[in-house]
Amino acid sequence: MIESRLASQLTFILELDRLKRVLRRTSLVGGDRRENSAEHSWQLAVMAMVLAEYANAPIDLLHTLKMLLVHDIVEIDAGDTFAYDVAANLDKEAREQAAADRIFGLLPADQCDEFRRLWEEFDARETPEARFANALDRMMPALQNYANGGGTWREPGVDRTAVYRRLQPIEEGAAALWAYLDARLVDAVARGLIRP
Amino acid sequence: MIESRLASQLTFILELDRLKRVLRRTSLVGGDRRENSAEHSWQLAVMAMVLAEYANAPIDLLHTLKMLLVHDIVEIDAGDTFAYDVAANLDKEAREQAAADRIFGLLPADQCDEFRRLWEEFDARETPEARFANALDRMMPALQNYANGGGTWREPGVDRTAVYRRLQPIEEGAAALWAYLDARLVDAVARGLIRP
Repeated sequence: MIESRLASQLTFILELDRLKRVLRRTSLVGGDRRENSAEHSWQLAVMAMVLAEYANAPIDLLHTLKMLLVHDIVEIDAGDTFAYDVAANLDKEAREQAAADRIFGLLPADQCDEFRRLWEEFDARETPEARFANALDRMMPALQNYANGGGTWREPGVDRTAVYRRLQPIEEGAAALWAYLDARLVDAVARGLIRP
Repeated sequence: MIESRLASQLTFILELDRLKRVLRRTSLVGGDRRENSAEHSWQLAVMAMVLAEYANAPIDLLHTLKMLLVHDIVEIDAGDTFAYDVAANLDKEAREQAAADRIFGLLPADQCDEFRRLWEEFDARETPEARFANALDRMMPALQNYANGGGTWREPGVDRTAVYRRLQPIEEGAAALWAYLDARLVDAVARGLIRP
């Protein structure tokens, strides 16, 4: 019985390897290759350790880290959906629900439930931890784009309005981080890195 | 003052991007490319969430996750040192200490201290959390090698004795995981994936 539980858990852990192959639209600082969702999730988790003091409301750091570590796992099946791709976002939820069924379903039932709840909580953006975690998930690509002289801000269909709409959850989760970033966005628009 | 603290923290977070470029010797499942230390760190953190119940002694999961998220950051400067490379391991400590000085030194002093202590605790393998975290760090490449039909076990100079010496800390941190893995190692030797 223990052997069978552990076998399920290790099957899930080996399956995680595939998230290292899911490419996001954002490039590494330096711009020469796109980042994958596994390394992105790691960076967000360390970011949460460093920036927890800026959350708008007190947060449970363990719970926040769990959400960030889990939030992109469904992309193993559903792929990364570019934030500014309106068409791809229409069926994103259905694709990701099916992915959650299969991938979290590899785990024993108790852990399947835990992982699914963490992922749903992240997406719902209703708890202080989920708001803060989402703030980091929106902020990191903006920092990378700014460091890369534009990055995905230069893709077709992206303009100042779309960028501000996408980044608005940062203020909901961490107003101090938003204040800092907003100053860089103003500069990015002034320098033509974001279309007006 | 807040602005200067946050600027230091964000400099550190952008510096983390470079860990995505540090290649380990281990390949992804499928074998077609080597994994990097950032995506590896993410996988270990999720692994700790899933396997915490097997730790030999009760562990603080938050503390364990922090150690796993931080444990390879020094490789940004020091590079990944192949576990079975005797020569490279001779000056590993000096290289990593200098890296810790520079990289953790980007953070405000309080967080620099916290990150350095986490990294040192991981390496010392004396606390229950450090023992369990090290067990996962040794176990994951063995699972990948086994899935890849040998992987780094096939490199020059690696034999059964070296593999068992390298993996021995797994039993110190999580005896149940070791029992499971040991059965796979016996099979790997029998199948010629590990030289006798």
